[in-house]
Amino acid sequence: MKQHDIQLDSEGKLRHFLTIEGLKKQMLLDILDYAENFSSVGNRQVKKVPLLRGKTIANLFFEPSTRTRTTFELAAKRLSADVLNININTSATTKGESLLDMLHNLEAMQVDMFVVRHNSSGAAHFIAQHVAPHVSVINAGDGSHAHPTQAMLDMFTIRRHKQDFTKLTVAIVGDIMHSRVARSQIHALNTLGVPEVRVIGPQTIIPNEAAHLGVHVYHDMQQGLQNVDVVIMLRLQRERMEGALLPSEHEYFHMFGLTEKKLKLAKPDAIVMHPGPINRGVEIESTVADGPQSVILEQVTHGISVRMAAMSMALGRSSLAEVQD
Amino acid sequence: MKQHDIQLDSEGKLRHFLTIEGLKKQMLLDILDYAENFSSVGNRQVKKVPLLRGKTIANLFFEPSTRTRTTFELAAKRLSADVLNININTSATTKGESLLDMLHNLEAMQVDMFVVRHNSSGAAHFIAQHVAPHVSVINAGDGSHAHPTQAMLDMFTIRRHKQDFTKLTVAIVGDIMHSRVARSQIHALNTLGVPEVRVIGPQTIIPNEAAHLGVHVYHDMQQGLQNVDVVIMLRLQRERMEGALLPSEHEYFHMFGLTEKKLKLAKPDAIVMHPGPINRGVEIESTVADGPQSVILEQVTHGISVRMAAMSMALGRSSLAEVQD
Amino acid sequence: MKQHDIQLDSEGKLRHFLTIEGLKKQMLLDILDYAENFSSVGNRQVKKVPLLRGKTIANLFFEPSTRTRTTFELAAKRLSADVLNININTSATTKGESLLDMLHNLEAMQVDMFVVRHNSSGAAHFIAQHVAPHVSVINAGDGSHAHPTQAMLDMFTIRRHKQDFTKLTVAIVGDIMHSRVARSQIHALNTLGVPEVRVIGPQTIIPNEAAHLGVHVYHDMQQGLQNVDVVIMLRLQRERMEGALLPSEHEYFHMFGLTEKKLKLAKPDAIVMHPGPINRGVEIESTVADGPQSVILEQVTHGISVRMAAMSMALGRSSLAEVQD
Repeated sequence: MKQHDIQLDSEGKLRHFLTIEGLKKQMLLDILDYAENFSSVGNRQVKKVPLLRGKTIANLFFEPSTRTRTTFELAAKRLSADVLNININTSATTKGESLLDMLHNLEAMQVDMFVVRHNSSGAAHFIAQHVAPHVSVINAGDGSHAHPTQAMLDMFTIRRHKQDFTKLTVAIVGDIMHSRVARSQIHALNTLGVPEVRVIGPQTIIPNEAAHLGVHVYHDMQQGLQNVDVVIMLRLQRERMEGALLPSEHEYFHMFGLTEKKLKLAKPDAIVMHPGPINRGVEIESTVADGPQSVILEQVTHGISVRMAAMSMALGRSSLAEVQD
Repeated sequence: MKQHDIQLDSEGKLRHFLTIEGLKKQMLLDILDYAENFSSVGNRQVKKVPLLRGKTIANLFFEPSTRTRTTFELAAKRLSADVLNININTSATTKGESLLDMLHNLEAMQVDMFVVRHNSSGAAHFIAQHVAPHVSVINAGDGSHAHPTQAMLDMFTIRRHKQDFTKLTVAIVGDIMHSRVARSQIHALNTLGVPEVRVIGPQTIIPNEAAHLGVHVYHDMQQGLQNVDVVIMLRLQRERMEGALLPSEHEYFHMFGLTEKKLKLAKPDAIVMHPGPINRGVEIESTVADGPQSVILEQVTHGISVRMAAMSMALGRSSLAEVQD
Repeated sequence: MKQHDIQLDSEGKLRHFLTIEGLKKQMLLDILDYAENFSSVGNRQVKKVPLLRGKTIANLFFEPSTRTRTTFELAAKRLSADVLNININTSATTKGESLLDMLHNLEAMQVDMFVVRHNSSGAAHFIAQHVAPHVSVINAGDGSHAHPTQAMLDMFTIRRHKQDFTKLTVAIVGDIMHSRVARSQIHALNTLGVPEVRVIGPQTIIPNEAAHLGVHVYHDMQQGLQNVDVVIMLRLQRERMEGALLPSEHEYFHMFGLTEKKLKLAKPDAIVMHPGPINRGVEIESTVADGPQSVILEQVTHGISVRMAAMSMALGRSSLAEVQD
């Protein structure tokens, strides 16, 4: 069985959400459409819908992340689910119970969904392969592999501003090689029919497989930003710097930091995105991050809607009619 | 006043749940019957009942335990109560506020129930002796003294499989001397009329008081398992090993680990139980833990129902009719 | 704009609750009146009202405080809000995201209210100055500056026992200089028309500005307690002792600890208050803390009501009629 098959149930509906890779265009559009419906929930006086009332969702975070955990927790609460936050120190897991024993125990407590973050690529898939038939898994980031809800909130944000994916040029700037975010974004952009996806970064961090992913590689930001509709900046992982894969922070900013001046090379109505948290003055200048073309905070808002959509679709309880009511 | 008297209110109803010792058979049967009713809640689409809506339950864990705390938290949420998780570093308690001052403060916040885990035997009793009249206490494990909800979920599991307690032979295997689980199980089995309770373990760890508890002591597992209906394995506390009270892990497994071969000595339809988390290859072989006679994960599921029963009985809001509706 | 102006919206209603300073008498009375209505909620079978259902409240605690956080969490849950607890290690904030970026992200997640505790005076004001128009901020204690909900629960407790503020003599005893509690109490007592507010403490810790605050300074507790209606003891911060600003603990108790004997100097019906947690035998004798004149635990109970009042007023959803129904 290929990795992506595991994501669908026998009727072809979304059961797990582990990776964008292998999902059909219509499925991605469905997620975006559901998310549109949830988008209005956040602006209501009562920001809750009863779709997942009585469901139990466990956040299994093997890697610390207050920010991502919080958005999943909020999404679950706004769907009226009960949420368990389980922060797992990896070393403790090793010493005591095995991962599978822990999972089976949580299943025996009738947990309906695991939201999993793990620093090993493939962890969410491994868990999805071993859960009971009634349990769904959402990948909240695994190693350098995938971060599908992040990619979908990015697509949601792009669609809000640019409507038609099939006419866009999108540039992703940064440490592509180590970025689960970039990998998921590239799959989503390709699937949704974006004709030109560019990746921009230093020579050391552009993967050899870039060509296989159907992207155009630029090592010169001035060239790469020419006429793009969307600029997606990645967070610089400072620990890479120390590993000597990257030049100094100062040099990095000079070469690949997004400044007002460089942004002028993109189309005048280009939008600027970033998965957060931003390193001001490292990969992005503050005036750009806070400027009129930045949609960075919108991405955060849409993240809640997209996660509500993925959760309710995977738990098979949602229909557009129910949400719209 | 004897310890067990404190558990009942003036009408003889359960107010605190601190220990099995001294409770009447009918009370234990009532808990099992209530739990049967809650058992179906976990399989509903909406796994919630409004019995404890607007009640506040505080988990006071002086000893870390993600697993037990989680089951109490889930039980409380499925009863619609509000839950406060308060993890107390014992040293911090010593330095700052006294335990009683902390309790009185939580009472002043109109907390209705304390679920207490503490590494000192008697801690839950101490707390129950000092709470206000409207507050209930549930012992979630105190030192090597008692763990009554664990014992009752075990009784629930046994009844599901064996119906009539009065015809059973039950063996408990392991470090009986240090086990609050074993102590509570023995009281429950005796009270429910199990005619033969056996404890099996190395000579160093069989308590002198075994005879007083009305159990039969075996130091040879081959003999002890003959014809039993139920095998309850205890978790080996590795820290005992270092204290030289026990042989090596390897030797322990050889003598008291449950293997497929040894299990053949029990009745063919014997069930295998374990309070979890299991040490695979230490006190139990994986093929037995995952085998057809194992009911270990069922125990976890029943743990939620039994805790819902104890909580709702102690808060005096539950009647079988209400749950069944 | 003066600090206190920021607290009111364009109609003069409470939007943020940052400090007592500058608020009008009628506003303080409104808070007390709302709190009276919530006071009965804690005694109901179902201790919840749906006033803030679907609202999201984030507890931002930059300084650890289980006790205060718990009361805010309970207040929010009893108003049916969803609560996020975000404990922030200050050093982590510095390294990663800036405070403002974190705030803007939480706002983008449609958080409606921040409850802020911080060890820097002015932190809550700073945050209030930067939040979006729909977001409210409640100061849960900032440095040595203010702790307005504590002061209001104290006023609530005094009114319950003494009714008319305009006939009282109130003494505050302890380390006034470093106490955000004392500062807020003094402003509240003055605004509510208490004719005589006394502060009692060692010479080193009485602020020069005492006169400006409209209080009478005593360095001799025997003199200061004469004929008072209310004695408010402050918690001795032991870390001050080491900084040599204060005499030894023993000496402090001798001079400024509240004993039964010293309490006799106050009016026979004087009440004794303390914000907690108390240091028994340091600033207060146990027989006084637990004695008939102590209202220390009542304060805790009223703290929930006062916080429910401040939260629902600031979120603009509350009317007396709604609560009374």
